[in-house]
Amino acid sequence: MEISVIAIGDELLIGQVVDTNSGSIARIIEKSGWSIDSVQTVRDDADSIRRAIDFGFSRTDIIVTTGGLGPTKDDITKQVLLDYFGGELTLNSEVLENVKSVFSRRGLTLNALTSSQAMVPSSCRVIQNLVGTAPIMWFEKNVGGSHKVLVSLPGVPFECVQMFDSEVFPQLLKRFPSDLHIGHRCVLLTGITESDAAEALDRFERALPPYLHLAYLPKQGIIRLRLDGKHSDEALLNAELDSHWQEIIDTFPGKILAIADISPEEALIMKLRERGLTLATAESCTGGNIAHRITSIAGCSDVYMGSVVSYANEVKTRLLGVDPSIIEAHGVVSEPVVEQMATGVCRAIGTDCSVATSGIAGPGGATPGKDVGTVCIAAAVRGKVVKATYHFPGTRDRVIDRASTTALTLLASMLS
Amino acid sequence: MEISVIAIGDELLIGQVVDTNSGSIARIIEKSGWSIDSVQTVRDDADSIRRAIDFGFSRTDIIVTTGGLGPTKDDITKQVLLDYFGGELTLNSEVLENVKSVFSRRGLTLNALTSSQAMVPSSCRVIQNLVGTAPIMWFEKNVGGSHKVLVSLPGVPFECVQMFDSEVFPQLLKRFPSDLHIGHRCVLLTGITESDAAEALDRFERALPPYLHLAYLPKQGIIRLRLDGKHSDEALLNAELDSHWQEIIDTFPGKILAIADISPEEALIMKLRERGLTLATAESCTGGNIAHRITSIAGCSDVYMGSVVSYANEVKTRLLGVDPSIIEAHGVVSEPVVEQMATGVCRAIGTDCSVATSGIAGPGGATPGKDVGTVCIAAAVRGKVVKATYHFPGTRDRVIDRASTTALTLLASMLS
Repeated sequence: MEISVIAIGDELLIGQVVDTNSGSIARIIEKSGWSIDSVQTVRDDADSIRRAIDFGFSRTDIIVTTGGLGPTKDDITKQVLLDYFGGELTLNSEVLENVKSVFSRRGLTLNALTSSQAMVPSSCRVIQNLVGTAPIMWFEKNVGGSHKVLVSLPGVPFECVQMFDSEVFPQLLKRFPSDLHIGHRCVLLTGITESDAAEALDRFERALPPYLHLAYLPKQGIIRLRLDGKHSDEALLNAELDSHWQEIIDTFPGKILAIADISPEEALIMKLRERGLTLATAESCTGGNIAHRITSIAGCSDVYMGSVVSYANEVKTRLLGVDPSIIEAHGVVSEPVVEQMATGVCRAIGTDCSVATSGIAGPGGATPGKDVGTVCIAAAVRGKVVKATYHFPGTRDRVIDRASTTALTLLASMLS
Repeated sequence: MEISVIAIGDELLIGQVVDTNSGSIARIIEKSGWSIDSVQTVRDDADSIRRAIDFGFSRTDIIVTTGGLGPTKDDITKQVLLDYFGGELTLNSEVLENVKSVFSRRGLTLNALTSSQAMVPSSCRVIQNLVGTAPIMWFEKNVGGSHKVLVSLPGVPFECVQMFDSEVFPQLLKRFPSDLHIGHRCVLLTGITESDAAEALDRFERALPPYLHLAYLPKQGIIRLRLDGKHSDEALLNAELDSHWQEIIDTFPGKILAIADISPEEALIMKLRERGLTLATAESCTGGNIAHRITSIAGCSDVYMGSVVSYANEVKTRLLGVDPSIIEAHGVVSEPVVEQMATGVCRAIGTDCSVATSGIAGPGGATPGKDVGTVCIAAAVRGKVVKATYHFPGTRDRVIDRASTTALTLLASMLS
């Protein structure tokens, strides 16, 4: 089953806001074997929206629109849908109650502009927005002999994704039922290139039954291998997925970061939790990004204690106990320094494990023999330290993010 | 002048990669008064790409495509463009030289697949890709009586944005010249709602000359006010922009975070630099995100020294000197605790200024009287502390990011 997505809003086309909704929708529907045919991003402009709807319905039976539903005068999606699907604006008392309760919860006073959100086209069925004020509208229409559905969602990512996942997509699945069962298995590999992994799996891939498909999703030195399957016989599908998945796992001894579809930080947290170990981080060039990525995972506090972001050299010596003469002798971007940072932060914060980074994120800061992108990383587990020097390409942001991922996987590999 | 953007790639439609290129392109062109009419995101599929081109040329004379130019078999954009614009694939020796030099710089061996990148349609003019291997292709064609241009760029954001900014857009500006001069002025406001700002500027806005336009861009409690102008007389335009900009500045005494189009972290760094002050951060619920945002700014090291991410209570007492009895008495999410964190981190790291956060980012962790989203923030300048308690809505990510922005602006306001 395929859908078209239309993302509506001037802010998306001036580079003020990046559309993340369509990606979130894609990830929700692909678990059921659905996919997005195309995404059209258009302005708050009646003609553009109408042409995007025509284009969408020329390709798929289902359109999901996001955005353009605010109470201000520049948001015109509702009017365009009214013109397209017919009917008239009528007061929906349940929506009005919902808007009132959202406003009172937020301690705000309702004005005329906002109560206008309770006016909805009579041609739609309303799905209550449980986390915001803009009602979700479900339209159906016969277009050129085939039955079409358009669902209009708010653009605020939090509201859009939560309501699509919990209400809209389950209703779409019921409206367009399928006999096919869908299954996925995922493995995260580290320390191997995509082409080497593909070579190792060449025979495996050629022998896959037609209802199974293997996808390579490489990112920042990690390869996510995803085995997808579709079949009407659920038991057969699961048995085949399991046996082929096991074959992948057996092909890469020592290269497996996780046997699940999770992020490197989640993989590391799981390994620490399994072994009852605690973690601290000491960051120079990554500047807090490793800590930020770990603490973005809810519930990390049972293993993660904290970080010392030692951006200045003085902080490295003062809080982490790095020997100034080591900095003098080897330079601050060096393996001896990150080793001392790694052991120092375990001592300072009182943890079993740590990672430490020191490097040149750029664009400035290169020194003779040490280019931009040079990063030294150390990982420590109860006094045992592994350290290495890397050269990452790209902009400052990319160097920081790649160094963070590498640090997380270096420690995770030590715990395997 | 308007352009259409087509973002090509399966990875964009399965939610693996978010298209940031179109937003970057929008921000580059809007400075010259150009804008994006629509963005179409389509698969690596010939029919989809061709239909997107037809749709784009039906709306604008210029199309910019991104992506689908890799050497692997799923990337078919070049073939589709060859079919659309005619000609045949010919070897471009300059491209081959470029591919070879990029590979040798990266220490990689050239294979047949990659050298195929030097084969380009004879119907295009090549712009050398100075930061990658995929050549940039410029096509021109008469479609339905009007002259059309399509430029095909690689999808890797680093390559796409750098080459569009430095080569492609300057050439487009030369190809489609305009008499109009463009100007912008920007002010960042804090501590005021969008509707209050709009009310204060109501008369101002109504008296604006037709060639000036005021835009409100609110985000995370900060309102970016941008005054845009277009006029054939450059001197007149600049004089008018300056005088109206000054009027905006005079309207909001004490509410101005910056008189430039910069981020809150850049605004804070500038203020610290101006006053010769140094900064440290002490983060609990924001978990390193403030440090990460500050250190994402190249050159921050002259004012920013480092951070203690005190995720565990023990780290707050051990490294920041927070009194355990204060935690006991008020709870860890409390103003007395963040006050001690703020003064403690100045002492521990040896800085003039600091910000500190402690809160409940969620989804778990709420306690009686302290809901998810409750965050205490303190800012310190040479021993003087300002502190407050906030309630932020939304998911864990949003609470963390909003708390980070609020901490940055709280300190910046103290320095105004």
